[in-house]
Amino acid sequence: MEVHVTVSPADLRRSRPAGRAVAVIDVVRAATTIACGLAAGCAGFLPVPSVAEARRRAAALGDPPPLLGGERRGVRLPGFDLGNAPTEYTPDRVAGRRVVFSTTNGTATLAAAGGAALVVVAALVNLGAAAEVLAAQKGDITLAAAGAAGRPVLDDLACAGLLAREVQRRRPDARLSDAAKAALLVGEAYQGRLLALLRESASGRALIDIGYDADLESCSQLSVLNVVPVLRGAWVTR
Amino acid sequence: MEVHVTVSPADLRRSRPAGRAVAVIDVVRAATTIACGLAAGCAGFLPVPSVAEARRRAAALGDPPPLLGGERRGVRLPGFDLGNAPTEYTPDRVAGRRVVFSTTNGTATLAAAGGAALVVVAALVNLGAAAEVLAAQKGDITLAAAGAAGRPVLDDLACAGLLAREVQRRRPDARLSDAAKAALLVGEAYQGRLLALLRESASGRALIDIGYDADLESCSQLSVLNVVPVLRGAWVTR
Repeated sequence: MEVHVTVSPADLRRSRPAGRAVAVIDVVRAATTIACGLAAGCAGFLPVPSVAEARRRAAALGDPPPLLGGERRGVRLPGFDLGNAPTEYTPDRVAGRRVVFSTTNGTATLAAAGGAALVVVAALVNLGAAAEVLAAQKGDITLAAAGAAGRPVLDDLACAGLLAREVQRRRPDARLSDAAKAALLVGEAYQGRLLALLRESASGRALIDIGYDADLESCSQLSVLNVVPVLRGAWVTR
Repeated sequence: MEVHVTVSPADLRRSRPAGRAVAVIDVVRAATTIACGLAAGCAGFLPVPSVAEARRRAAALGDPPPLLGGERRGVRLPGFDLGNAPTEYTPDRVAGRRVVFSTTNGTATLAAAGGAALVVVAALVNLGAAAEVLAAQKGDITLAAAGAAGRPVLDDLACAGLLAREVQRRRPDARLSDAAKAALLVGEAYQGRLLALLRESASGRALIDIGYDADLESCSQLSVLNVVPVLRGAWVTR
Protein backbone atom coordinates (compact mmCIF):
# COMPACT_ATOMS: atom_id res chain seq x y z
CA MET A 1 0.00 0.00 0.00
CA GLU A 2 1.31 3.44 -0.95
CA VAL A 3 0.23 6.61 0.87
CA HIS A 4 0.62 9.74 -1.26
CA VAL A 5 -0.27 13.37 -0.47
CA THR A 6 -1.49 15.92 -3.01
CA VAL A 7 -1.46 19.63 -2.21
CA SER A 8 -4.24 21.21 -4.30
CA PRO A 9 -7.28 20.18 -6.37
CA ALA A 10 -5.21 20.40 -9.58
CA ASP A 11 -2.45 18.30 -8.05
CA LEU A 12 -5.04 15.68 -7.04
CA ARG A 13 -6.55 15.63 -10.55
CA ARG A 14 -3.14 15.25 -12.21
CA SER A 15 -2.13 12.49 -9.78
CA ARG A 16 -4.69 10.13 -11.39
CA PRO A 17 -6.68 9.16 -8.30
CA ALA A 18 -8.79 6.58 -10.20
CA GLY A 19 -8.92 3.32 -8.33
CA ARG A 20 -7.30 4.72 -5.17
CA ALA A 21 -8.91 5.58 -1.83
CA VAL A 22 -8.92 9.37 -1.45
CA ALA A 23 -9.28 11.38 1.75
CA VAL A 24 -10.25 14.99 1.05
CA ILE A 25 -8.72 17.21 3.76
CA ASP A 26 -9.92 20.76 4.33
CA VAL A 27 -9.30 21.45 8.01
CA VAL A 28 -10.31 25.12 7.88
CA ARG A 29 -13.21 24.54 7.54
CA ALA A 30 -15.29 22.45 5.11
CA ALA A 31 -14.08 18.99 6.17
CA THR A 32 -14.44 19.89 9.86
CA THR A 33 -17.92 21.27 9.23
CA ILE A 34 -19.04 18.18 7.32
CA ALA A 35 -17.75 15.87 10.08
CA CYS A 36 -19.44 18.00 12.77
CA GLY A 37 -22.68 18.20 10.78
CA LEU A 38 -22.89 14.43 10.28
CA ALA A 39 -22.02 13.87 13.94
CA ALA A 40 -24.94 16.19 14.79
CA GLY A 41 -27.32 13.98 12.81
CA CYS A 42 -27.36 15.77 9.44
CA ALA A 43 -28.75 13.35 6.81
CA GLY A 44 -26.12 14.27 4.21
CA PHE A 45 -24.21 17.00 2.42
CA LEU A 46 -24.54 17.61 -1.32
CA PRO A 47 -21.34 19.42 -2.33
CA VAL A 48 -21.78 21.62 -5.38
CA PRO A 49 -19.18 23.85 -7.02
CA SER A 50 -21.13 27.06 -7.67
CA VAL A 51 -23.51 29.14 -5.60
CA ALA A 52 -26.00 29.31 -8.46
CA GLU A 53 -26.03 25.54 -8.72
CA ALA A 54 -26.47 25.22 -4.96
CA ARG A 55 -29.65 27.30 -5.16
CA ARG A 56 -30.88 25.32 -8.18
CA ARG A 57 -30.23 21.95 -6.59
CA ALA A 58 -31.83 23.02 -3.31
CA ALA A 59 -34.96 24.20 -5.12
CA ALA A 60 -35.17 20.92 -7.06
CA LEU A 61 -34.95 18.70 -3.99
CA GLY A 62 -38.34 17.65 -2.60
CA ASP A 63 -39.70 17.62 0.94
CA PRO A 64 -38.40 18.11 3.47
CA PRO A 65 -36.66 21.09 1.88
CA PRO A 66 -32.89 20.95 2.29
CA LEU A 67 -30.83 23.55 4.05
CA LEU A 68 -28.42 25.72 2.06
CA GLY A 69 -24.93 25.93 3.57
CA GLY A 70 -21.57 27.33 2.60
CA GLU A 71 -19.47 30.40 2.05
CA ARG A 72 -17.55 32.58 -0.33
CA ARG A 73 -14.56 34.51 1.03
CA GLY A 74 -15.35 32.78 4.32
CA VAL A 75 -18.71 34.47 4.77
CA ARG A 76 -22.20 32.88 4.71
CA LEU A 77 -23.95 33.53 1.41
CA PRO A 78 -27.05 35.75 1.16
CA GLY A 79 -30.20 33.69 1.65
CA PHE A 80 -28.26 30.64 2.89
CA ASP A 81 -29.41 28.95 6.10
CA LEU A 82 -25.92 28.13 7.30
CA GLY A 83 -22.36 29.33 6.74
CA ASN A 84 -19.26 27.15 7.02
CA ALA A 85 -18.66 27.30 10.79
CA PRO A 86 -18.57 23.87 12.47
CA THR A 87 -20.40 25.26 15.49
CA GLU A 88 -23.42 26.25 13.38
CA TYR A 89 -24.12 22.61 12.51
CA THR A 90 -25.83 21.68 15.79
CA PRO A 91 -28.43 18.92 16.22
CA ASP A 92 -31.26 21.44 16.54
CA ARG A 93 -30.31 22.98 13.18
CA VAL A 94 -29.33 19.97 11.08
CA ALA A 95 -30.57 16.68 12.61
CA GLY A 96 -32.41 14.71 9.94
CA ARG A 97 -31.92 17.49 7.36
CA ARG A 98 -30.02 17.43 4.08
CA VAL A 99 -27.58 20.26 3.36
CA VAL A 100 -26.74 21.54 -0.12
CA PHE A 101 -23.22 22.79 0.46
CA SER A 102 -20.85 25.02 -1.49
CA THR A 103 -17.47 26.17 -0.20
CA THR A 104 -14.38 27.63 -1.83
CA ASN A 105 -11.76 24.87 -1.64
CA GLY A 106 -13.21 21.70 -0.18
CA THR A 107 -15.87 21.32 -2.86
CA ALA A 108 -13.32 21.68 -5.68
CA THR A 109 -11.17 18.98 -4.11
CA LEU A 110 -14.10 16.57 -3.84
CA ALA A 111 -14.81 17.21 -7.53
CA ALA A 112 -11.16 16.45 -8.41
CA ALA A 113 -11.35 12.99 -6.82
CA GLY A 114 -13.34 11.59 -9.76
CA GLY A 115 -12.91 7.87 -10.37
CA ALA A 116 -11.54 7.13 -6.91
CA ALA A 117 -12.50 3.75 -5.43
CA LEU A 118 -13.50 5.45 -2.17
CA VAL A 119 -13.72 9.12 -1.17
CA VAL A 120 -13.81 10.08 2.50
CA VAL A 121 -13.61 13.48 4.18
CA ALA A 122 -10.95 13.98 6.83
CA ALA A 123 -9.94 16.75 9.22
CA LEU A 124 -8.20 16.91 12.58
CA VAL A 125 -11.50 16.33 14.40
CA ASN A 126 -11.95 12.86 12.88
CA LEU A 127 -8.33 11.93 12.17
CA GLY A 128 -8.32 8.64 14.10
CA ALA A 129 -11.62 7.44 12.63
CA ALA A 130 -10.49 8.33 9.10
CA ALA A 131 -7.20 6.46 9.65
CA GLU A 132 -9.13 3.33 10.68
CA VAL A 133 -11.17 3.35 7.48
CA LEU A 134 -8.16 4.11 5.25
CA ALA A 135 -5.96 1.48 6.89
CA ALA A 136 -8.61 -1.15 6.07
CA GLN A 137 -8.26 -0.46 2.33
CA LYS A 138 -6.59 -2.91 -0.02
CA GLY A 139 -5.28 -0.42 -2.58
CA ASP A 140 -3.22 2.74 -2.55
CA ILE A 141 -4.28 5.88 -0.73
CA THR A 142 -4.17 9.56 -1.63
CA LEU A 143 -4.52 12.16 1.11
CA ALA A 144 -5.78 15.20 -0.79
CA ALA A 145 -4.97 18.44 1.01
CA ALA A 146 -7.43 21.00 -0.33
CA GLY A 147 -5.25 24.08 0.09
CA ALA A 148 -6.64 27.53 -0.72
CA ALA A 149 -6.89 29.27 -4.07
CA GLY A 150 -4.86 26.49 -5.70
CA ARG A 151 -1.96 26.75 -3.26
CA PRO A 152 -1.00 24.43 -0.39
CA VAL A 153 -1.86 25.54 3.15
CA LEU A 154 -0.03 24.47 6.30
CA ASP A 155 -3.06 23.14 8.17
CA ASP A 156 -4.11 20.71 5.43
CA LEU A 157 -0.51 19.58 4.82
CA ALA A 158 0.03 18.95 8.54
CA CYS A 159 -3.28 17.08 8.85
CA ALA A 160 -2.37 14.95 5.81
CA GLY A 161 1.01 14.15 7.36
CA LEU A 162 -0.45 13.18 10.74
CA LEU A 163 -3.09 11.08 8.96
CA ALA A 164 -0.38 9.33 6.91
CA ARG A 165 1.38 8.45 10.15
CA GLU A 166 -1.82 7.09 11.73
CA VAL A 167 -2.43 4.92 8.66
CA GLN A 168 1.14 3.65 8.78
CA ARG A 169 0.82 2.80 12.47
CA ARG A 170 -2.10 0.53 11.58
CA ARG A 171 -0.51 -0.80 8.40
CA PRO A 172 3.24 -1.29 8.76
CA ASP A 173 3.36 -2.28 5.08
CA ALA A 174 2.29 1.25 4.04
CA ARG A 175 5.01 3.13 2.12
CA LEU A 176 4.92 6.93 2.22
CA SER A 177 5.62 8.87 -0.98
CA ASP A 178 8.06 11.80 -0.76
CA ALA A 179 5.09 14.17 -0.65
CA ALA A 180 3.65 12.20 2.28
CA LYS A 181 7.02 12.24 4.08
CA ALA A 182 7.22 16.01 3.61
CA ALA A 183 3.68 16.45 4.94
CA LEU A 184 4.57 14.29 7.94
CA LEU A 185 7.51 16.59 8.75
CA VAL A 186 5.05 19.50 8.71
CA GLY A 187 2.63 17.60 10.94
CA GLU A 188 5.34 16.66 13.41
CA ALA A 189 6.53 20.26 13.59
CA TYR A 190 3.10 21.36 14.82
CA GLN A 191 2.20 18.29 16.87
CA GLY A 192 0.81 19.27 20.28
CA ARG A 193 0.17 22.83 19.12
CA LEU A 194 -2.55 22.45 16.54
CA LEU A 195 -4.26 25.73 17.39
CA ALA A 196 -0.96 27.49 16.67
CA LEU A 197 -0.83 25.59 13.36
CA LEU A 198 -4.25 26.91 12.37
CA ARG A 199 -3.37 30.44 13.46
CA GLU A 200 -0.20 30.30 11.38
CA SER A 201 -1.68 28.78 8.22
CA ALA A 202 -2.89 30.97 5.37
CA SER A 203 -6.44 29.63 5.69
CA GLY A 204 -6.50 30.33 9.43
CA ARG A 205 -5.14 33.84 8.96
CA ALA A 206 -7.80 34.57 6.34
CA LEU A 207 -10.44 33.53 8.88
CA ILE A 208 -8.91 35.62 11.66
CA ASP A 209 -8.93 38.60 9.27
CA ILE A 210 -12.71 38.37 8.96
CA GLY A 211 -13.24 37.88 12.71
CA TYR A 212 -13.85 34.13 12.80
CA ASP A 213 -11.02 33.25 15.23
CA ALA A 214 -13.38 31.12 17.32
CA ASP A 215 -13.80 28.60 14.48
CA LEU A 216 -10.11 27.74 14.66
CA GLU A 217 -10.59 26.35 18.15
CA SER A 218 -13.25 23.93 16.85
CA CYS A 219 -11.11 22.93 13.86
CA SER A 220 -8.02 22.23 16.01
CA GLN A 221 -9.55 19.46 18.15
CA LEU A 222 -7.79 16.15 17.43
CA SER A 223 -9.80 12.93 16.92
CA VAL A 224 -12.84 14.02 18.92
CA LEU A 225 -15.43 12.67 16.46
CA ASN A 226 -15.92 9.03 15.53
CA VAL A 227 -17.37 9.96 12.15
CA VAL A 228 -16.05 9.27 8.65
CA PRO A 229 -17.99 11.13 5.96
CA VAL A 230 -18.08 9.10 2.72
CA LEU A 231 -18.95 10.34 -0.77
CA ARG A 232 -21.67 8.06 -2.20
CA GLY A 233 -22.82 9.20 -5.62
CA ALA A 234 -23.28 12.94 -5.24
CA TRP A 235 -23.87 12.88 -1.47
CA VAL A 236 -21.53 12.88 1.52
CA THR A 237 -23.04 10.81 4.33
CA ARG A 238 -21.85 8.82 7.34
CA MET B 1 8.53 40.44 -1.47
CA GLU B 2 6.80 37.06 -1.33
CA VAL B 3 8.70 33.77 -1.56
CA HIS B 4 6.55 30.88 -2.80
CA VAL B 5 7.47 27.26 -3.51
CA THR B 6 5.93 25.09 -6.23
CA VAL B 7 6.33 21.32 -6.18
CA SER B 8 6.12 20.16 -9.82
CA PRO B 9 6.22 21.60 -13.36
CA ALA B 10 2.39 21.63 -13.48
CA ASP B 11 2.21 23.39 -10.11
CA LEU B 12 4.67 26.01 -11.38
CA ARG B 13 2.66 26.56 -14.57
CA ARG B 14 -0.60 26.93 -12.65
CA SER B 15 0.96 29.33 -10.14
CA ARG B 16 1.26 31.99 -12.86
CA PRO B 17 4.98 32.73 -12.66
CA ALA B 18 4.77 35.63 -15.15
CA GLY B 19 6.60 38.67 -13.82
CA ARG B 20 8.18 36.79 -10.89
CA ALA B 21 11.77 35.66 -10.43
CA VAL B 22 11.85 31.86 -10.68
CA ALA B 23 14.55 29.52 -9.41
CA VAL B 24 14.31 26.08 -11.01
CA ILE B 25 15.51 23.47 -8.50
CA ASP B 26 16.45 19.95 -9.59
CA VAL B 27 19.08 18.80 -7.10
CA VAL B 28 19.31 15.24 -8.43
CA ARG B 29 20.72 16.05 -10.94
CA ALA B 30 20.06 18.52 -13.76
CA ALA B 31 20.44 21.74 -11.75
CA THR B 32 23.61 20.46 -10.09
CA THR B 33 24.99 19.37 -13.45
CA ILE B 34 24.26 22.73 -15.08
CA ALA B 35 25.91 24.62 -12.22
CA CYS B 36 28.96 22.32 -12.33
CA GLY B 37 29.16 22.55 -16.13
CA LEU B 38 29.11 26.34 -16.14
CA ALA B 39 31.65 26.42 -13.30
CA ALA B 40 33.84 24.19 -15.49
CA GLY B 41 33.70 26.76 -18.31
CA CYS B 42 30.88 25.39 -20.44
CA ALA B 43 29.67 28.17 -22.77
CA GLY B 44 25.99 27.41 -22.17
CA PHE B 45 23.25 24.79 -21.93
CA LEU B 46 20.35 24.64 -24.39
CA PRO B 47 17.59 22.76 -22.52
CA VAL B 48 15.18 20.97 -24.86
CA PRO B 49 12.24 18.78 -23.92
CA SER B 50 12.63 15.80 -26.24
CA VAL B 51 15.57 13.66 -27.26
CA ALA B 52 14.63 13.96 -30.94
CA GLU B 53 14.65 17.73 -30.66
CA ALA B 54 18.00 17.63 -28.88
CA ARG B 55 19.52 15.78 -31.85
CA ARG B 56 17.87 18.17 -34.33
CA ARG B 57 19.02 21.29 -32.50
CA ALA B 58 22.55 19.96 -32.09
CA ALA B 59 22.78 19.18 -35.81
CA ALA B 60 21.50 22.66 -36.70
CA LEU B 61 24.02 24.51 -34.53
CA GLY B 62 27.17 25.59 -36.40
CA ASP B 63 30.84 25.29 -35.54
CA PRO B 64 32.17 24.44 -33.10
CA PRO B 65 29.68 21.56 -32.91
CA PRO B 66 27.86 21.42 -29.58
CA LEU B 67 27.98 18.50 -27.21
CA LEU B 68 24.85 16.45 -26.59
CA GLY B 69 24.07 15.85 -22.92
CA GLY B 70 21.29 14.38 -20.86
CA GLU B 71 19.43 11.27 -19.82
CA ARG B 72 16.26 9.25 -19.84
CA ARG B 73 15.55 7.00 -16.84
CA GLY B 74 18.79 8.38 -15.45
CA VAL B 75 21.00 6.87 -18.15
CA ARG B 76 23.03 8.66 -20.86
CA LEU B 77 21.30 8.51 -24.22
CA PRO B 78 22.73 6.53 -27.15
CA GLY B 79 25.06 8.70 -29.21
CA PHE B 80 25.13 11.46 -26.59
CA ASP B 81 28.52 12.85 -25.52
CA LEU B 82 27.55 13.30 -21.90
CA GLY B 83 25.01 11.96 -19.44
CA ASN B 84 23.59 13.89 -16.49
CA ALA B 85 26.31 13.27 -13.89
CA PRO B 86 27.85 16.47 -12.48
CA THR B 87 31.29 14.83 -12.45
CA GLU B 88 31.21 14.30 -16.24
CA TYR B 89 31.13 18.05 -16.86
CA THR B 90 34.85 18.68 -16.33
CA PRO B 91 36.85 21.54 -17.88
CA ASP B 92 38.57 19.18 -20.34
CA ARG B 93 35.17 18.00 -21.60
CA VAL B 94 33.08 21.15 -21.61
CA ALA B 95 35.25 24.31 -21.39
CA GLY B 96 34.23 26.69 -24.16
CA ARG B 97 31.68 24.20 -25.54
CA ARG B 98 27.92 24.52 -25.84
CA VAL B 99 25.74 21.66 -24.54
CA VAL B 100 22.35 20.74 -25.97
CA PHE B 101 20.74 19.22 -22.91
CA SER B 102 17.66 17.09 -22.30
CA THR B 103 16.71 15.59 -18.95
CA THR B 104 13.53 14.14 -17.51
CA ASN B 105 12.37 16.69 -14.94
CA GLY B 106 14.58 19.77 -14.93
CA THR B 107 13.92 20.61 -18.57
CA ALA B 108 10.14 20.42 -18.09
CA THR B 109 10.36 22.77 -15.13
CA LEU B 110 12.40 25.32 -17.10
CA ALA B 111 9.73 25.17 -19.83
CA ALA B 112 6.98 25.79 -17.25
CA ALA B 113 8.60 29.06 -16.10
CA GLY B 114 7.42 30.90 -19.22
CA GLY B 115 6.89 34.62 -18.76
CA ALA B 116 9.00 34.88 -15.62
CA ALA B 117 10.96 38.11 -15.18
CA LEU B 118 14.10 36.10 -14.37
CA VAL B 119 14.82 32.36 -14.41
CA VAL B 120 17.83 31.00 -12.55
CA VAL B 121 18.88 27.43 -11.85
CA ALA B 122 19.51 26.45 -8.23
CA ALA B 123 20.72 23.37 -6.40
CA LEU B 124 22.47 22.70 -3.10
CA VAL B 125 25.89 23.27 -4.71
CA ASN B 126 25.11 26.92 -5.55
CA LEU B 127 22.52 27.70 -2.85
CA GLY B 128 24.30 30.72 -1.40
CA ALA B 129 25.05 32.29 -4.78
CA ALA B 130 21.46 31.76 -5.93
CA ALA B 131 20.15 33.33 -2.70
CA GLU B 132 22.29 36.44 -3.34
CA VAL B 133 20.81 36.93 -6.82
CA LEU B 134 17.23 36.24 -5.69
CA ALA B 135 17.48 38.52 -2.66
CA ALA B 136 18.47 41.37 -4.98
CA GLN B 137 15.15 41.11 -6.88
CA LYS B 138 12.44 43.72 -6.53
CA GLY B 139 9.45 41.47 -7.19
CA ASP B 140 8.10 38.20 -5.86
CA ILE B 141 10.02 34.94 -6.06
CA THR B 142 8.98 31.39 -6.91
CA LEU B 143 11.27 28.53 -5.96
CA ALA B 144 10.24 25.81 -8.41
CA ALA B 145 11.07 22.34 -7.12
CA ALA B 146 11.20 20.11 -10.19
CA GLY B 147 10.12 16.87 -8.52
CA ALA B 148 10.02 13.64 -10.52
CA ALA B 149 7.31 12.32 -12.81
CA GLY B 150 5.00 15.14 -11.73
CA ARG B 151 5.34 14.41 -8.01
CA PRO B 152 7.28 16.32 -5.34
CA VAL B 153 10.62 14.85 -4.20
CA LEU B 154 12.21 15.44 -0.80
CA ASP B 155 15.56 16.73 -2.09
CA ASP B 156 14.05 19.50 -4.20
CA LEU B 157 11.58 20.48 -1.45
CA ALA B 158 14.35 20.65 1.14
CA CYS B 159 16.59 22.67 -1.17
CA ALA B 160 13.72 25.08 -1.88
CA GLY B 161 13.12 25.49 1.86
CA LEU B 162 16.77 26.15 2.65
CA LEU B 163 16.96 28.60 -0.26
CA ALA B 164 13.84 30.40 1.02
CA ARG B 165 15.55 30.79 4.38
CA GLU B 166 18.74 32.15 2.80
CA VAL B 167 16.71 34.68 0.81
CA GLN B 168 14.85 35.71 3.97
CA ARG B 169 18.13 36.15 5.87
CA ARG B 170 19.20 38.67 3.24
CA ARG B 171 15.77 40.26 2.92
CA PRO B 172 13.96 40.48 6.25
CA ASP B 173 10.93 41.90 4.39
CA ALA B 174 10.46 38.59 2.54
CA ARG B 175 7.23 36.79 3.45
CA LEU B 176 7.11 33.01 3.01
CA SER B 177 3.97 31.42 1.56
CA ASP B 178 2.60 28.34 3.34
CA ALA B 179 4.23 26.14 0.69
CA ALA B 180 7.57 27.85 1.38
CA LYS B 181 7.13 27.40 5.15
CA ALA B 182 6.38 23.70 4.62
CA ALA B 183 9.48 23.33 2.41
CA LEU B 184 11.55 25.07 5.08
CA LEU B 185 10.41 22.51 7.67
CA VAL B 186 11.59 19.77 5.30
CA GLY B 187 14.92 21.55 4.78
CA GLU B 188 15.46 22.03 8.50
CA ALA B 189 14.70 18.36 9.15
CA TYR B 190 17.61 17.36 6.90
CA GLN B 191 20.00 20.21 7.66
CA GLY B 192 23.51 18.92 8.32
CA ARG B 193 22.71 15.55 6.73
CA LEU B 194 22.18 16.40 3.10
CA LEU B 195 23.64 13.16 1.78
CA ALA B 196 21.05 11.30 3.89
CA LEU B 197 18.39 13.56 2.36
CA LEU B 198 19.44 12.59 -1.15
CA ARG B 199 19.62 8.89 -0.26
CA GLU B 200 16.12 9.08 1.22
CA SER B 201 14.45 11.04 -1.59
CA ALA B 202 12.66 9.28 -4.44
CA SER B 203 15.04 10.80 -7.01
CA GLY B 204 18.10 9.67 -5.05
CA ARG B 205 16.73 6.17 -4.60
CA ALA B 206 16.04 5.91 -8.33
CA LEU B 207 19.69 6.81 -8.95
CA ILE B 208 20.98 4.31 -6.39
CA ASP B 209 18.85 1.64 -8.09
CA ILE B 210 20.77 2.14 -11.35
CA GLY B 211 24.16 2.23 -9.62
CA TYR B 212 24.81 5.97 -9.62
CA ASP B 213 25.25 6.38 -5.84
CA ALA B 214 28.43 8.39 -6.36
CA ASP B 215 26.50 11.24 -7.99
CA LEU B 216 24.60 11.84 -4.76
CA GLU B 217 27.81 12.85 -3.03
CA SER B 218 28.42 15.58 -5.67
CA CYS B 219 24.80 16.76 -5.47
CA SER B 220 24.85 17.03 -1.67
CA GLN B 221 27.66 19.62 -1.38
CA LEU B 222 26.28 22.87 0.03
CA SER B 223 27.18 26.24 -1.52
CA VAL B 224 30.49 25.11 -3.01
CA LEU B 225 30.03 26.88 -6.37
CA ASN B 226 29.76 30.63 -6.86
CA VAL B 227 27.76 30.21 -10.06
CA VAL B 228 24.20 31.22 -10.85
CA PRO B 229 22.97 29.80 -14.16
CA VAL B 230 20.51 32.19 -15.82
CA LEU B 231 18.06 31.42 -18.64
CA ARG B 232 18.57 34.03 -21.39
CA GLY B 233 16.36 33.37 -24.38
CA ALA B 234 16.69 29.65 -25.00
CA TRP B 235 20.12 29.29 -23.36
CA VAL B 236 21.24 28.82 -19.76
CA THR B 237 24.53 30.64 -19.19
CA ARG B 238 26.47 32.17 -16.31
